[in-house]
Amino acid sequence: MKLNEHFSSLERSYLFSQIAREVDDYQSAHPSAEVIRLGIGDVTRPLAEAVVKAFADAVYEQGQAATFHGYGPEQGYAFLREAIAAHYATFQVQLSADDIFISDGAKSDVGNILDLFGPGNTALIPDPVYPVYRDTNQMAGNRIRYLDAGRHNGFLPLPDGRPADLIYLCSPNNPTGAVYRREQLKQWVDYARDLGAIILFDAAYEAFLQDEYLPHSIYEIEGARECAIEFCSFSKTAGFTGTRCGYTVVPRELERGGFSLHDMWFRRQSTKFNGVSYPVQRAAAAVFSPQGETQCRASIEVYRQNAAIICEALRGCGIWHVGGENAPYIWMQCPGGLSSWEFFRLLLNRAGVVGTPGSGFGKNGEGYFRLTAFGDTEKTQQAMERIADVIGRIS
Amino acid sequence: MKLNEHFSSLERSYLFSQIAREVDDYQSAHPSAEVIRLGIGDVTRPLAEAVVKAFADAVYEQGQAATFHGYGPEQGYAFLREAIAAHYATFQVQLSADDIFISDGAKSDVGNILDLFGPGNTALIPDPVYPVYRDTNQMAGNRIRYLDAGRHNGFLPLPDGRPADLIYLCSPNNPTGAVYRREQLKQWVDYARDLGAIILFDAAYEAFLQDEYLPHSIYEIEGARECAIEFCSFSKTAGFTGTRCGYTVVPRELERGGFSLHDMWFRRQSTKFNGVSYPVQRAAAAVFSPQGETQCRASIEVYRQNAAIICEALRGCGIWHVGGENAPYIWMQCPGGLSSWEFFRLLLNRAGVVGTPGSGFGKNGEGYFRLTAFGDTEKTQQAMERIADVIGRIS
Repeated sequence: MKLNEHFSSLERSYLFSQIAREVDDYQSAHPSAEVIRLGIGDVTRPLAEAVVKAFADAVYEQGQAATFHGYGPEQGYAFLREAIAAHYATFQVQLSADDIFISDGAKSDVGNILDLFGPGNTALIPDPVYPVYRDTNQMAGNRIRYLDAGRHNGFLPLPDGRPADLIYLCSPNNPTGAVYRREQLKQWVDYARDLGAIILFDAAYEAFLQDEYLPHSIYEIEGARECAIEFCSFSKTAGFTGTRCGYTVVPRELERGGFSLHDMWFRRQSTKFNGVSYPVQRAAAAVFSPQGETQCRASIEVYRQNAAIICEALRGCGIWHVGGENAPYIWMQCPGGLSSWEFFRLLLNRAGVVGTPGSGFGKNGEGYFRLTAFGDTEKTQQAMERIADVIGRIS
Repeated sequence: MKLNEHFSSLERSYLFSQIAREVDDYQSAHPSAEVIRLGIGDVTRPLAEAVVKAFADAVYEQGQAATFHGYGPEQGYAFLREAIAAHYATFQVQLSADDIFISDGAKSDVGNILDLFGPGNTALIPDPVYPVYRDTNQMAGNRIRYLDAGRHNGFLPLPDGRPADLIYLCSPNNPTGAVYRREQLKQWVDYARDLGAIILFDAAYEAFLQDEYLPHSIYEIEGARECAIEFCSFSKTAGFTGTRCGYTVVPRELERGGFSLHDMWFRRQSTKFNGVSYPVQRAAAAVFSPQGETQCRASIEVYRQNAAIICEALRGCGIWHVGGENAPYIWMQCPGGLSSWEFFRLLLNRAGVVGTPGSGFGKNGEGYFRLTAFGDTEKTQQAMERIADVIGRIS
């Protein structure tokens, strides 16, 4: 019996459980304190009315023999894949519905995609980073090479000439909120094509882009269809964190060593997955209906206002930060030379505000802190007043 | 760039797509023929009323900020895990809710569980078999050793003394409908413990058991908590094939080489999965409510009647068969020495009835044929009359 020994190289404790523990301890010691959470990247606004209606209608369909849906296509229903292809067309990316695979979320696909690759590949992963890229590559027995992100490159690292097989990019970025420009992504695409590497592009936050010149998809870059897989999700676009639906684009053209990655992913998904709940797919499709779009955009607008409140307060304190304008995350330098966890504890104990210590996302995150715009506007305002007050006392 | 070269060892064509193609061809050639499908193992009866109500209520919760659910626990909500533990108690298995992991379906978990094991393990897989066991082990680079099932052992193979690391058992069985008795499973548990192997027990059809002496769960067998993982699903119990929810039991006691398999699966799921849709989990929990149980049992009763109709007709024709009494599948010997595909084509062309060629499930399936009880009762009756007529003309 051989176990997957790579599990033993994984770090035991998980960032967010440590945060939860410390917040619980604080709340027990201060039962009357009103803690404001700008920590975990979970949404707070409910599903849009049009989405709820489509969701519920499909649930009722499941209750009648004439409209009942059993096993659906493993790749997802055409009605949803076509709606997603039409969404891509709004930013001038021409996808075929056949390029798109529906799943229960981007996290699953980002992890499961490694089934297509052998062990011992070199994965290029930015630091700081969404921990799932790192952990899944450790589980798979890949070599990880970190790409240094920092103030020097605006937390947007570019190719450094060293070899790689898999290149993880997340833009708008989690945790930093930084966004690659088109010419920067072009450098990555050219680099991947030179190396024969594959870019794994996480576009989970594309709905937060406001500036028209910023790319929503890696496929806006010429040549990307031959070197990139893209992951996206309804989690942040439409508040699906608890409803669960995402999608992955594996273009037909994507081949390596005579193998079609598209065919391999289809085989992987049709063997180890059985499709997404029919009512959930109907709910997701309603995100792209005219009403659904308007309503989802209204929620994102609220989160954008929160981000603006956060950025304005940080500017007022003279704190360096990135993100927030085209992303729901704001990545700030800790004041007074504090470490990430020192600032976390100071903020929790002095202000009752919870954020995420940047060091939890990698060594380059040390000295930084992540705030999220997914809260309630009034509470976000209140939190920033408290944070400004704490920072004011440090300086 | 290393690809997973094991994908190239997978068979290209998939059984059910070949069937679909041949049925389409027949239907095009005979547009007025009414084809009756007793092939794919998909349910046809709608979700129970109590399940639809709980499902829809939870959808409406997602539409209000006060009751909105974002990210849920990766392992599943306690309300559902506790309801499942209570279900196990009805057949005298004491599980802790902590032993249970909720997922989008047993197929995903049966595939993903291999993430916990190294490559090069020996998997013991019955032949004939649900193709997912074979394909996922090929993808993982495991050695496969087939366990011969046939008329000589009632399609219920027992330990043969040869080495194994992973042992796949499915009871009630897909495709044969055969069911292990308690003393037979005891032999498997003892064997696995002797070898240090792990039993992967697929209990997806447990709700179809009628005979009280037959085991619903591997954990009814003493010692199984130290050597078995169990997969189950709401697909056949409650018609969730298109709604998607399953669960996997990994007992706390299950360890190998100092590693807790429970902790490894938790780590796998919390890294590569983000939980099941909240409304789907509410729907699944309603399956165990008093109303839900009564209503789901009524649907299963219909399928049981269909199975009885099928078995009675086959007995009338003097055709050897197994299954149907405690399973939704009936596994019959093809009449007149026909091969599986010969009988498939004869039945399609002479009777307009679709079944599944046994050879699609492995070499030992050759000469056998699978019928399913998931259709409409009237059509099942009609199909069996047509089948009896075809068989009558062969003999």
